[in-house]
Amino acid sequence: MNDKLPAHDWPTLARTLFTVLAAVVAMASLASCAAPKAEGLSGPLVIERQGSFFVGGRELRSDTLSTLPPFAPSGTITVDQMYVHYQVPTAANRVPMVLIHGCCLTGTSWETTPDGRMGWDEFFVRRGHPTHVIDQAWRGRSAVDPTTAISIKMGKTPPQQMPAVFAAGHEGAWKIFRFGPAYTQAFDGLQFPLASQAELWKQMVPDWNAALPQPNPTVSALSQLATRLRSAVLVSHSQSGIYPFQTAALSTQGIAGIVALEPGSCPAADSNMQPYVGLPVLLLFGDFVEQSTDWWVPRFKACENFVNALNLAGGKAEIMRLPDVGFSGNSHMMMQDRNSLDVAEWLDRWIARRIEGR
Amino acid sequence: MNDKLPAHDWPTLARTLFTVLAAVVAMASLASCAAPKAEGLSGPLVIERQGSFFVGGRELRSDTLSTLPPFAPSGTITVDQMYVHYQVPTAANRVPMVLIHGCCLTGTSWETTPDGRMGWDEFFVRRGHPTHVIDQAWRGRSAVDPTTAISIKMGKTPPQQMPAVFAAGHEGAWKIFRFGPAYTQAFDGLQFPLASQAELWKQMVPDWNAALPQPNPTVSALSQLATRLRSAVLVSHSQSGIYPFQTAALSTQGIAGIVALEPGSCPAADSNMQPYVGLPVLLLFGDFVEQSTDWWVPRFKACENFVNALNLAGGKAEIMRLPDVGFSGNSHMMMQDRNSLDVAEWLDRWIARRIEGR
Repeated sequence: MNDKLPAHDWPTLARTLFTVLAAVVAMASLASCAAPKAEGLSGPLVIERQGSFFVGGRELRSDTLSTLPPFAPSGTITVDQMYVHYQVPTAANRVPMVLIHGCCLTGTSWETTPDGRMGWDEFFVRRGHPTHVIDQAWRGRSAVDPTTAISIKMGKTPPQQMPAVFAAGHEGAWKIFRFGPAYTQAFDGLQFPLASQAELWKQMVPDWNAALPQPNPTVSALSQLATRLRSAVLVSHSQSGIYPFQTAALSTQGIAGIVALEPGSCPAADSNMQPYVGLPVLLLFGDFVEQSTDWWVPRFKACENFVNALNLAGGKAEIMRLPDVGFSGNSHMMMQDRNSLDVAEWLDRWIARRIEGR
Repeated sequence: MNDKLPAHDWPTLARTLFTVLAAVVAMASLASCAAPKAEGLSGPLVIERQGSFFVGGRELRSDTLSTLPPFAPSGTITVDQMYVHYQVPTAANRVPMVLIHGCCLTGTSWETTPDGRMGWDEFFVRRGHPTHVIDQAWRGRSAVDPTTAISIKMGKTPPQQMPAVFAAGHEGAWKIFRFGPAYTQAFDGLQFPLASQAELWKQMVPDWNAALPQPNPTVSALSQLATRLRSAVLVSHSQSGIYPFQTAALSTQGIAGIVALEPGSCPAADSNMQPYVGLPVLLLFGDFVEQSTDWWVPRFKACENFVNALNLAGGKAEIMRLPDVGFSGNSHMMMQDRNSLDVAEWLDRWIARRIEGR
């Protein structure tokens, strides 16, 4: 990893120390984490409490709420809130988890896999973690602000000002999710259950991420949620990869650690590392990264640079690919791959060691 | 109820028979159902299995998927599918339930109440029912089709053709939800937990109902779901009130009964009653209906006419207001009112008697 370090003029001693430290951490990970099998997951699930709530949100007064006769165009709505669904097991003796979905998806990413197996939401509950699955602001059960779209329909706002919503097509998603080199072609040994791909496509929703107000309400809501939970691992995926870091930059209160699964972006290697220095951080990628030269190779490299910079600043971050720890064939959707629960088991052991100090 | 019968020229005998029958049914309901208290709901919840899946959906090829550089404008997306979240208790000895939310809301309606109490989703699981909470097509976790909005942004479609989405303002919802006669004024004895109203407002999302393709994909998805479940009670709320009847008109397969909570509309009294004749049907309203002269009084009357016509055709339908069976102060959001679990208990007993024949 270290040959990717940015070309700063670091003192030789620091550089050497860091190289040794990184090697030790990597070896420790490899030694204890070779592809465990998830077991003990059958039998009834016993829940202490479950439910849902919202975090954040603001009231918005608008005169463009409706063009339909029975519903008033003027009034107050609430937008920017973040939906949270949670389950707490009876024997909750582990650190709480917050599962944050990626682009064009909702919290369903973590629920039942496309081929009908247990999702990571239930896995972590069964392992003793109070588990929280969110829908990002403006996605899923978290309301979109529709007032500009309605204003355009009314002729009050130019159509070019339509918020930048987009839908990811199956064809493009196929490549970004690393199912194969080109649409309908699969990588050899791919773990994603392609026979059930239709169910994944149904999980996808339009993405209003580019239209969100700034600062991003999902990030401030995650900060509020972490504070409320007192100690939580923020687990991001893909487009949300940067969110736990942005949350930590607001405040580290309540953040026990960060797990970024295939982050679409990481903090810049030359940015302020202080918010993350005290946090256990894992950046975890699947297989076939090096075959995604236009999309994932540059993203992996940028994240590697971030990890190196963070560790040099005194942090305790790791970046790895699942093949490095004994898994092969994993796609971008590792929580839905055929070996998803084995990957979850590996991650749970990482959390126990690095975050809970077990 | 019978003085509201439509002015058809029915034979006197049928009319008399119907009047007697309706009275017997109403008395039986009153005798056995006076405001029971929900009990035995504490302690751990034991789940046999849980998860989510989608029903329905179609592939849509479009050239207006995106205006953002990294995402292709052309490709295939999946739309019109319906999200289903379910829990099956270990001792599932009761009829499966499907909980269908109303206007401007999602499946969160049935989850934790705004003031943090158990939702009807968990209540029915604890009472032994496999319970299914859906998000209607184009709502919540069920994807909206964004292609027309994006085409408008691209200048390819006139802005007037923006699909008719609307957001219900707090002010208008206050009256339709029957919290009081005017915004911020509450009815005496109102059961809705107004101190937590902000949480209800956060549950609300833009409603694309008027823009849905026809036939309504939620209805065909409900039919597929009922068929899959083999025997299910379809429980609708408000705007979705007509859906279980439209579902039954497609096919009665898998429909064990229909419970319409405060239906916004009912089948016309002069329409074909045959699809509903064999089904136990309950139309249940809260309190203060007669004070909503412009909204709920005409809707209640139209539904009463439907019930009368259905029973005359040999059906077994009931329409009642919660005050008729011993509850007072209930709003339109009876599943979130302070006495929500007592109302659920009453409903569960009705289901046991009328649908399960216990």
